Amino acid sequence: MGYKTYIDLIKHVIQDKEIFSTGMTQEVERCNKAIELAISGKKVAVVSSGDSGIYGMAGLVLELLQGSGVRGQGAKENNFTRITHHASHIPVSIIPGVPAFCAAAGLLGAPLMHDFASVSLSDLLTPWETIKKRLEMAAEGDFVIILYNPKSKKRVSQLKEAIDIISTHRKHNTPVGIVKDATRKDEEARVTVLGDISSHYDFIDMSTIVIIGNSTTFITDGKMITPRGYNV
Amino acid sequence: MGYKTYIDLIKHVIQDKEIFSTGMTQEVERCNKAIELAISGKKVAVVSSGDSGIYGMAGLVLELLQGSGVRGQGAKENNFTRITHHASHIPVSIIPGVPAFCAAAGLLGAPLMHDFASVSLSDLLTPWETIKKRLEMAAEGDFVIILYNPKSKKRVSQLKEAIDIISTHRKHNTPVGIVKDATRKDEEARVTVLGDISSHYDFIDMSTIVIIGNSTTFITDGKMITPRGYNV
Repeated sequence: MGYKTYIDLIKHVIQDKEIFSTGMTQEVERCNKAIELAISGKKVAVVSSGDSGIYGMAGLVLELLQGSGVRGQGAKENNFTRITHHASHIPVSIIPGVPAFCAAAGLLGAPLMHDFASVSLSDLLTPWETIKKRLEMAAEGDFVIILYNPKSKKRVSQLKEAIDIISTHRKHNTPVGIVKDATRKDEEARVTVLGDISSHYDFIDMSTIVIIGNSTTFITDGKMITPRGYNV
Repeated sequence: MGYKTYIDLIKHVIQDKEIFSTGMTQEVERCNKAIELAISGKKVAVVSSGDSGIYGMAGLVLELLQGSGVRGQGAKENNFTRITHHASHIPVSIIPGVPAFCAAAGLLGAPLMHDFASVSLSDLLTPWETIKKRLEMAAEGDFVIILYNPKSKKRVSQLKEAIDIISTHRKHNTPVGIVKDATRKDEEARVTVLGDISSHYDFIDMSTIVIIGNSTTFITDGKMITPRGYNV
């Protein structure tokens, strides 16, 4: 069970399996369907990209399981009917994976050797005021900052605003790493600085991770390194 | 090449390899030795636990490689002599892994469905004032907070101080997950609340990860869940 793009990425290892994939923004439907199939006795794997425990599907599956019942496809309330079968007895294992930001970091060098904060710029499910406050705090705390969902086709202004907030606390020459499609066929990593990031805005999309260094991060041989503090 | 404890954990897959392991706090020696061996023509793997890119050895290897030369074991300056051989031509791949906090999160449920900040409480290489400031900012920004290196045999006061800082911004019933030795033989996960964490201080040590929920995190069926914001 998974978002179509992710299912396609692993199709070579699930050829003999029953597959159920849906489009983006159908997360609730997808997880409900997974639970329904599990109740019917099947072993179900819900696939996320990166680590399912980081902005992934793990939480939604657990949230949907915890209610008094499970909502299945059908009618009425949000296009779902209530299935009365209590589902909390279904055992769930969350299998940790390699998060997208770790795959990105490895391509950039070693930007995450010190304390870091991750902020998703998607305001579909989170008020923009909350996101701005977090950017402010992360910047003031001198965290290495990871930006998830920096930009989409419809959502373009948030990245510039985020960079403006961070720039009030960081120098223009702060290293910035930009990685698109980490570990996928067309992966591409760029290292730049905060003052020049706007020239990469066209490159940045929803499958891009942006990592902004802290006050000690430096660039050497094209690699972005945040020192841990060893005397070298 | 690695810290002895980690080498022991993977000895079944490296039986036919040349192995060089050292004790804790010998990180610089270990990475220099790895570089020395690489210069001599060997293919060397430096092993970290979790993801080598997160508080791991990736940065130190790159830092040691970037200088004008590489320091090898011998004499003088910090017990090392300079090897004049320029080492920056040695290709390095950072292989991303499953970070300890992701393994911990999976055992707890889904605490990392929303923005999070990671802070190491070890003040061996970082001033305590910097760490306190970050805890303050992470707490005020309502980040899910991951605490690395919460306590060691010699370093016990930092955890209590960190919890005090966080508690000024979070309710006493904020869910807290505590995971020791995630994915190892004796792994143990506990879910508690901020107001009761002191009763678990004896359990917490250097191989423990502590995850403190944000203002929306809840506990259900013993699982810790931070909602992503879907309408469920």
